[in-house]
Amino acid sequence: MSLPQKITTKEQVDALLDQYDNFLFDCDGVLWLGDHLLPHVVETLAFLKSKGKKLIFVTNNSTKSRENYLKKFEKFGVKGITKSDIFGSAYATAVYLDKVMKFDHTKKVWVLGGQGVHDELTELGIQSIGGTDPELDKPFSDDSKFLKLDPEVGAVIAGLDTSINYHRLSITLQYLLDPNVIFMATNIDSTFPSHGKILPGAGSIIESAIYSSGRQPTVCGKPNMNLLKAIQAEHNLNLERSIMVGDRLNTDMKFGKDGGLGTLLVLTGIETEANVLKQDGTPKYYADKLGDLYELQK
Amino acid sequence: MSLPQKITTKEQVDALLDQYDNFLFDCDGVLWLGDHLLPHVVETLAFLKSKGKKLIFVTNNSTKSRENYLKKFEKFGVKGITKSDIFGSAYATAVYLDKVMKFDHTKKVWVLGGQGVHDELTELGIQSIGGTDPELDKPFSDDSKFLKLDPEVGAVIAGLDTSINYHRLSITLQYLLDPNVIFMATNIDSTFPSHGKILPGAGSIIESAIYSSGRQPTVCGKPNMNLLKAIQAEHNLNLERSIMVGDRLNTDMKFGKDGGLGTLLVLTGIETEANVLKQDGTPKYYADKLGDLYELQK
Repeated sequence: MSLPQKITTKEQVDALLDQYDNFLFDCDGVLWLGDHLLPHVVETLAFLKSKGKKLIFVTNNSTKSRENYLKKFEKFGVKGITKSDIFGSAYATAVYLDKVMKFDHTKKVWVLGGQGVHDELTELGIQSIGGTDPELDKPFSDDSKFLKLDPEVGAVIAGLDTSINYHRLSITLQYLLDPNVIFMATNIDSTFPSHGKILPGAGSIIESAIYSSGRQPTVCGKPNMNLLKAIQAEHNLNLERSIMVGDRLNTDMKFGKDGGLGTLLVLTGIETEANVLKQDGTPKYYADKLGDLYELQK
Repeated sequence: MSLPQKITTKEQVDALLDQYDNFLFDCDGVLWLGDHLLPHVVETLAFLKSKGKKLIFVTNNSTKSRENYLKKFEKFGVKGITKSDIFGSAYATAVYLDKVMKFDHTKKVWVLGGQGVHDELTELGIQSIGGTDPELDKPFSDDSKFLKLDPEVGAVIAGLDTSINYHRLSITLQYLLDPNVIFMATNIDSTFPSHGKILPGAGSIIESAIYSSGRQPTVCGKPNMNLLKAIQAEHNLNLERSIMVGDRLNTDMKFGKDGGLGTLLVLTGIETEANVLKQDGTPKYYADKLGDLYELQK
């Protein structure tokens, strides 16, 4: 039994910095909780940068594009982050489709998801339809213009869609009934915390499409290794010198472990210390909060 | 290997009538296809009645109440059907909750589904909220009045809901997070045929609630035996003298077989003859169409 080690001293932080060059961060529950920045996050990120560490932000949230994330970092006063440091699952899915699956750019993607998916596809030069189109907000009927399927659609990408309705689910199913149409999902989180509530996550939307179509998507969110393939297609990290920092055992920590990275869990999100101490080997390290890496230097 | 026997002669029909007193019918794909009555259905039902057979209509469609079904039978000119002959899955679920689970009538049901579920609960004297409430058509936000959960809700019933949206899914999840709240589903059909299209069925809606909540519902649609319990709570049939007539192997025929009933598949719905002939023992009989039982008499 290898118990997770709690980071409580400067010496432990220094040892961590010696061991890892690349820090991969989950965002919500680690850097912030919704619109509330967690303590000493700005200082910790600046401190790691000053030590020459590479910072990459890896989030399963598919509703935001990297541009949206950049704005959020700016708003919180986090300096020196560039778009290439951010891997949202919408972007990761788009990169996977483009770089790993070599998607034909004369084809289009049907989106069951938010604006983030459209935006990231557009950046990679891939056309997308469906998704946020307001015509899809209308009730479904036999007259839906979308029932005339677009023969150029070669893939469906599904993610969290807070505008989900029967119209969107029905048209998504029509495309998935064609086995030649690729089926990808940004992530399969069942829920996510929001303002003290537990709300249905991307997986709860995608599961509906999985069940009606009888098909399984290629998943690009944590803990799936397809996400690591997408990251490596751009960054080519030395994984042994990389550590995943997150707040969830079943996504962040599993992702780190399966990918051969180090693992650091912070208790500012979804897990309790009691639960962390029941784990064998993963996470390798844990801390009350990310800000401790900075605070313990003082 | 016991091959399904095709009904093609008057002698075979007569033998069937000798063997069974109670005929349980699926509706869509057997009696009609959407708004289109199938050939000689009116005559066949009248013929069976004239032979003293009991007719029960068992459908997984939860969006319609028994009143709605009565109107549909009337519209098609089918005479002599009463409400007690009709078992829609909305009614079956309400009966199961009431009679089998002894639901406390001072409690309420939260509905993720159509008007049929509300109507059938009302008939049994059970209050219901959610479902078709137009306030739920609004986009979900932290201000949703439904986030103030009703402490009187003791059960969630989920079924096909063509007004599904994130608001309904989110509130449904809030109730399901309480393990003391009963979780029931009208049926778990993944799809249903409509005007030449395959559309997402009740199961595709319910699966979203299953995945977000991590809970499994008590299911009252075919092929689940809870439906038979609900039917028997009202009709107390001699099952050996009963036969299930339907168009689907995985719902109608499985329901008949598991319940110890005879099975007759008609080819006017979803299955092909080639597929039926691959089956071992179930269905026991099959026919091109239900109307053949009448036509072969001539």
